Amino acid sequence: MMNGRGLVNRLAAALLALTLLPATAAHAEDGYALWLRYAPLGGDALARLQGFAPRVERASGTTGGPMLAVAEAELARGLTSLGAPAKTKGSIRLDCPRAGGDGDGSFHIRAVDARTLVIAGADHRACLYGAFALLRELSLGRDPRAIELDERPAMPLRMLDHWDNVDGSVERGYAGRSIFDWWRLPDHLDRRLIDYARANASIGIDAVAVNNVNAPAIFLEPRFIAKLRRIADAWRPYGIRVFLSARFSAPRDIGGLATADPLDPAVRRWWKAKADEIYAAIPDFGGFLVKANSEGQPGPQDYGRSHADGANMLAAALGSRGTVIWRAFVYSAEDASDRAKQAYADFVPLDGQFADNVIVQVKNGPIDFQPREPFHPIFGAMPKTRLMFEGQITKEYLGFSTHLAFLAPLWKEALDADTGRGGTVAGMVRRGGMAGVANVGSDRNWTGGHFDQANWYAFGRLAWNPSLASEAVAREWAAQTLGRDAGFLDAVTAMMLGSRQAVVDYMTPLGLAHQMGTNHHYGPAPWVCDLARPEWNPCYYSRADAHGIGFDRTASGSDALAQYAPSVADEWRDPKAMDEDYLLWFHHLPWDWRTRSGRSLWAELVHRYDRGVAAVDAMAATWDAQRSHVDAERFADVAEDLKVQQREARWWRDASIAWWQSLNGLPLPAGAAPPAHDIDHYRALAFPEAPGI
Amino acid sequence: MMNGRGLVNRLAAALLALTLLPATAAHAEDGYALWLRYAPLGGDALARLQGFAPRVERASGTTGGPMLAVAEAELARGLTSLGAPAKTKGSIRLDCPRAGGDGDGSFHIRAVDARTLVIAGADHRACLYGAFALLRELSLGRDPRAIELDERPAMPLRMLDHWDNVDGSVERGYAGRSIFDWWRLPDHLDRRLIDYARANASIGIDAVAVNNVNAPAIFLEPRFIAKLRRIADAWRPYGIRVFLSARFSAPRDIGGLATADPLDPAVRRWWKAKADEIYAAIPDFGGFLVKANSEGQPGPQDYGRSHADGANMLAAALGSRGTVIWRAFVYSAEDASDRAKQAYADFVPLDGQFADNVIVQVKNGPIDFQPREPFHPIFGAMPKTRLMFEGQITKEYLGFSTHLAFLAPLWKEALDADTGRGGTVAGMVRRGGMAGVANVGSDRNWTGGHFDQANWYAFGRLAWNPSLASEAVAREWAAQTLGRDAGFLDAVTAMMLGSRQAVVDYMTPLGLAHQMGTNHHYGPAPWVCDLARPEWNPCYYSRADAHGIGFDRTASGSDALAQYAPSVADEWRDPKAMDEDYLLWFHHLPWDWRTRSGRSLWAELVHRYDRGVAAVDAMAATWDAQRSHVDAERFADVAEDLKVQQREARWWRDASIAWWQSLNGLPLPAGAAPPAHDIDHYRALAFPEAPGI
Repeated sequence: MMNGRGLVNRLAAALLALTLLPATAAHAEDGYALWLRYAPLGGDALARLQGFAPRVERASGTTGGPMLAVAEAELARGLTSLGAPAKTKGSIRLDCPRAGGDGDGSFHIRAVDARTLVIAGADHRACLYGAFALLRELSLGRDPRAIELDERPAMPLRMLDHWDNVDGSVERGYAGRSIFDWWRLPDHLDRRLIDYARANASIGIDAVAVNNVNAPAIFLEPRFIAKLRRIADAWRPYGIRVFLSARFSAPRDIGGLATADPLDPAVRRWWKAKADEIYAAIPDFGGFLVKANSEGQPGPQDYGRSHADGANMLAAALGSRGTVIWRAFVYSAEDASDRAKQAYADFVPLDGQFADNVIVQVKNGPIDFQPREPFHPIFGAMPKTRLMFEGQITKEYLGFSTHLAFLAPLWKEALDADTGRGGTVAGMVRRGGMAGVANVGSDRNWTGGHFDQANWYAFGRLAWNPSLASEAVAREWAAQTLGRDAGFLDAVTAMMLGSRQAVVDYMTPLGLAHQMGTNHHYGPAPWVCDLARPEWNPCYYSRADAHGIGFDRTASGSDALAQYAPSVADEWRDPKAMDEDYLLWFHHLPWDWRTRSGRSLWAELVHRYDRGVAAVDAMAATWDAQRSHVDAERFADVAEDLKVQQREARWWRDASIAWWQSLNGLPLPAGAAPPAHDIDHYRALAFPEAPGI
Repeated sequence: MMNGRGLVNRLAAALLALTLLPATAAHAEDGYALWLRYAPLGGDALARLQGFAPRVERASGTTGGPMLAVAEAELARGLTSLGAPAKTKGSIRLDCPRAGGDGDGSFHIRAVDARTLVIAGADHRACLYGAFALLRELSLGRDPRAIELDERPAMPLRMLDHWDNVDGSVERGYAGRSIFDWWRLPDHLDRRLIDYARANASIGIDAVAVNNVNAPAIFLEPRFIAKLRRIADAWRPYGIRVFLSARFSAPRDIGGLATADPLDPAVRRWWKAKADEIYAAIPDFGGFLVKANSEGQPGPQDYGRSHADGANMLAAALGSRGTVIWRAFVYSAEDASDRAKQAYADFVPLDGQFADNVIVQVKNGPIDFQPREPFHPIFGAMPKTRLMFEGQITKEYLGFSTHLAFLAPLWKEALDADTGRGGTVAGMVRRGGMAGVANVGSDRNWTGGHFDQANWYAFGRLAWNPSLASEAVAREWAAQTLGRDAGFLDAVTAMMLGSRQAVVDYMTPLGLAHQMGTNHHYGPAPWVCDLARPEWNPCYYSRADAHGIGFDRTASGSDALAQYAPSVADEWRDPKAMDEDYLLWFHHLPWDWRTRSGRSLWAELVHRYDRGVAAVDAMAATWDAQRSHVDAERFADVAEDLKVQQREARWWRDASIAWWQSLNGLPLPAGAAPPAHDIDHYRALAFPEAPGI
C-alpha cells in the first residue's frame, strides 16, 4: 500500500509528464504528429525505458551546433513522451565530433556499458539520424540497452520533389494546398515547414525540390531567391538541402536574352551569374531540377541541342557547388511508335556525355507511375551516367488520397528487379538517389488520407535502405503512428501489404495501364480514343477490339522488349511462361486465350477485377475490426475513406467490364455480377471539379 | 503548511484539470481555438467559479435534443477548462422547453437563488446562445452568481458569405484554401466544419452562404445538393442554416432550357422543381443568394426584366420555406456618370415591388468595401423593402491578412449613421440582417492573421447587437483569445481601435478611395488610368491633376450627394464645414485649398500619410511590449506581420506621394521625408502571384 508521500511523488511525476508532453500527443489525434507521435510506452517496454532512464549528454570532443541541437531536442521530446522518468540513471551519449552535416550520415548505436548507449558518427548529421533511429527503436518497444545499429545510407540523394505551384495549388496534390506560402515568405515562415523538416530528417530525406517541374521562371527572380533562402535557413539544421525546378527558357523569360540556347555564351553567362546569386544567398543550395522538352516545357532541343548539352551547361553554372537533376521523362509529339520506348531511345545514346554533377532522373517504369509497370529499361543501360529513381508518392493513378494503397511493394518491385546488366535497379542508383513526388499538403494530417503518411515514410526508409522489406516498413510505421498492439499490427500490416495489388486488380489488372479519365485521371475511362495525341488515349494502351486486348511490345509489335537485357526480355517474351501480372503490357492476346489459371483471358480479367473489389471489401472489414485499437477520430476518417474506395473499386470494375463487353460482345463468366449500369452511364459521368490538375 | 493528504488532493485536482482540458488548450497556441480558448481562470475569478462550482442540469419540461446537447457539451468543456471543480455545489439550469431552434434565440440568464443560475428562453436555440454568452461572461472573469443578461438579436439574419470556389480557391481569401472540401463531400466531413459552426454559434451567426456569389451552376446539381446536405445536417445543431449562391442562368446552363427569362413559365417551373429538390434534402435550407447583372454575371436584365422580376421569381420558387438575398452591388458597363450612384438608381425605384421573402443586400458604402466610405444611400431610401447590410470581413482593400486592422469601427460608422430618413443604418436592416464576407480559410489559425479573428468575432457580435461599442467588442475578444491582464488589454484594445484609421491614413486619407493595384488589389497604384472601363481605374476616383484632387459629388459634379436625405447631404455639402475624413469623396479641391488644420490640402494629405505610417510604428512598439503577456508562438506571428505592415505602410505612403508630386509638381511640406524611390520604381513593381483573385 502506498503512503501519502509515495502517492505525492507518483502524482507529481504524472503531472510533470503531462506538462512535458509534446503538444501534439495531448492534442486531438488529427494525424499532424505523423510517425513522430511517441505515444507513451506501456508494460515491459515502459519498465525497460524507466529502468534505463537516460539523460542525453555529449561525448568529450562533441560540441554543440544547430544540427546537434535538433538531435538533442528530439531526444528530449521523444524520451519524455515515451515515458522516460525525469530522474535519470543511464545516459545516451552523442559522439559526433565534427560540427555541421557534410558527412553521409552513417552512424552506429551501441551500448558501451550497462548504463550508457552511444550514438556515434563522423559529424552532427550522424547524430541527427542516429537520434531519430534510436527513438524509432524505442517507440517499437525495443530494449534500450540491447539496441545495436550500424547504418549507412544506400545512396547520396534521398529526395522529395514538390509539384507545388506559386499560387498554392499542387499538381497531382490531394491533400489541400501547398505547404509553401510563397506569398508570405520570406517575412513569415509557417511552423509547419519545421515539422515537415523534422519528419523528413527522421527518415533520412536530405533534399527537397520545392516547386513544380512545370515551373515558371519567376522562381529564379531575386525576391523568390530571398523566399527560398528563408526555407533553406530553416531546414539546414535538419540536414535538408533545397533544390529548385528551373525553367530552361529563363534567360529569355526573365533574363532579357533573345535565346536560351545552351551553347550561346550569353546564356551560359546568365546561368552562371544566376547560380552565383543563389549561392550568395544559400551556400548549400542543392541545384536545379529540370523537365526539358517534355509535355510542352522548353529545352535544349528547341535549339537543336541534346539533353546532355542542356544539362551540362547548367552543371557548369553550378560547378562543384551543386547538382543538375535532369528528368528522363520525355515523349515527343512526333514519334508514334511506342511511348514506352522513347526515354530510352533519347537518353541511352547520351551515356557518358553527362557531366559528373548531372544526375538523370528516371521514373520507376517506362510510362508514368501506373499502378503496375515493369521497371524502366534505362536502369542498367547507362552505366557511365549517375541515375536517380523517381517514384510518385502522391497517388495520381492509384485513387488519389482516398484509396488506401501502400506503395512500398510497388517501389520494391522496381528496386529489387535485376536489370540483367550487373545489378538491381537499386544498385543502379547508388551514385544518384531516389526522388519521390511528394504527397503532402496543408491538410492537418499532411497527406489527405491517414495511410498516405505511410507512403511518405516508406519512400524515405527505402531511399535510405532499399533492401528493407515492405512488411517491416509497414509494421514499424503503423506501430509508431497508430498503435502497438501485436494483433492490430498483424492485421493492419497485412491489409497494407495487399492494398496496392487490390488497386491493380480493380483498375488495370494483368498488365493493363493508363485507363483513367482524361486530365484529372479520376476514375475509369477505357473508351477514350479521341484525344489529339495517340499516347494520351486509353485505347492506345489497351489496343482492345472485338478480337483481343493488350499492347504487343515483342518483336512482332513495338519491340520495346528489346530495350531490356536479354535475360530480362526472356522472362517476358513468352505469354505462356511469364508472370501474368505483366501479360498485357507486353502482349496483345485474343479474348479466348488460355491463362495459367485455366480461365480464358476474358474470364481471368473479370476474375481479377472481382478479386480487387473483394480485397477492398476485406480491407474495410479488417479496419472495422480495429475500432478498439485506434482513436475514434482517425478510425472514422479511415472508415469513411474505405467506403469511398469500396464504391469506386466497383465503379472501376463495372465500367471497365461494360466497356470490354461492348467491344468483345462476350457474356460474363458464370457467377460474375453484371455491371450496375450500362456503358452509356459510365461514359456520361463528368467531374469538372476533380482536384490535382 | 500543507500535509501529505492536502498536497495529494491539490496534485490530483491539477492532474484531473490537465486531463480534462480541451484538446486545443493543451495544444500549441496556433490560434485554432479562436476566442473559445477558455484559458484557466486565476485569482479571484477562479475562486468565485470554484465557490459556485456548477453542474449543468435541465429544468423540468426541458427535454434533450441535438441543439441542447451542443449547449450542454460546450458548457461542460468551457467550465472544466476555465477551472470549475469536479465536485459540484451550484447549478446552471437550462430552461428552454421547446425542442428545436425555430425561435429567434432571445434568452436571459439570471440567478434564481444563491446556488442556481438559469439560462432560459423559448426553445433550444435560446439555451445554445445563452450557454455561449455565459461562458463568455465567465471567461471575462465575471462573478457567476452576479451575471444577469437579457438578450435578443437585433435582426433575424446574421450571416457569413463565403466567396469560396468549387476548386478550393477563395476569391479575396488570404487564409489558405477554402474550408469546404467539395471534392471529398459528402463522404467526408472535415471536423473543422464543426468547429466553424461552434465558433459561429458562439457569436450568434445563424446563416452561411457556402459558395462564391460568382457561382457556377454546378452547385445546383444533385451531387452538390448531397454535399450541401451533409453540411446542413452537421450545422443544424448549431443553429446555422445554409444558403447557396445561385447562378441566374442555371436553367440554361444545366437545365436544358433555351432561356433563363424569369417570366418564362418553363424557367419558373425549373426553379420551383429545383427548390423542391433541395428542400427534400435540406428541410431548413435558407435560400438563394444572387449576384445578378453585375460584373459579368447573368441576370434578369439579360431578358429586359427588372431585378424585382428576377428576385420575385426565385422567391416564388422557394415560397415560405426560404429567402432570396438579392445583391444591390451593380454597376453597368454603359453608365459612365458615377459608379457610386448606380445601385441607388437601379434599386430605389423598385421599392415596394419585392416579395416578402426577398431581402436586398446592400454594401456598407456605395463603392466597394473601401477603407472608408460614407454609408450607402440606399439605406433609408427603400422603406418598403427588407434590407441587409453587407460588410467585408476579409480585408480585400485593407492589407489582406497581413495588416492589422480591426474593422468594428468601420462597420459601426455605417451602422450608427443616421440616414436622415427615420433611423440609423442599423435600424434600416432590423427586418433583414447583416452579412459579412467571410475571412476564414484552411490556415490553422483560420484567418491568416491572428487579429483577423477579431473581425469575424466583431461582425457576429455587431449583427447580434449593433449598439455594442467597438471598444467593448475588442476588449472581450482579446481577453478571451489572448490574455486577461488588464494592462495588456488596455494596450491591445487601444491598438485595435486605432488600427483601421491607420490603414485609411497610409492608403487613402481624406476620403480618397480605390487607389490599389489592378485585379489583386495589392499595394498602391494611383497612376493606373488605362483599364477598359473608366470606373476600374484609380484615376477615376482620385480625379487628380496638376490643379487638384478629389471627386466632385456635389451638384456641380455627379450630385451623388442628392441621393442622401437632405439633412445628411447638408453635413457633407460644404468642404469647409464637413468632417474632413470624407472630404475628397465628395469634393474636388485645389492642392492649395486650406484645410481646418491650417495646412494646405497637399500638406494635410502628406501629414495624414505620415500619421498612418507613424501609427503602424506605434502599433509595432505596443505589441513588442506585450511579449510577456502572450504565448511565444502567436507573439512572433503578430510581430512578423507588423513588420510587413510597417514596410507596406511606407510603400503606400511613398508611392502615393511620389505620384501626386508627379502631377502637382509641389515640393514636400517642411519636414516630410522624400519617398524612398522615384515614381518609376513603384510603377514597375509587379506581383503576378498575389493571392485572392
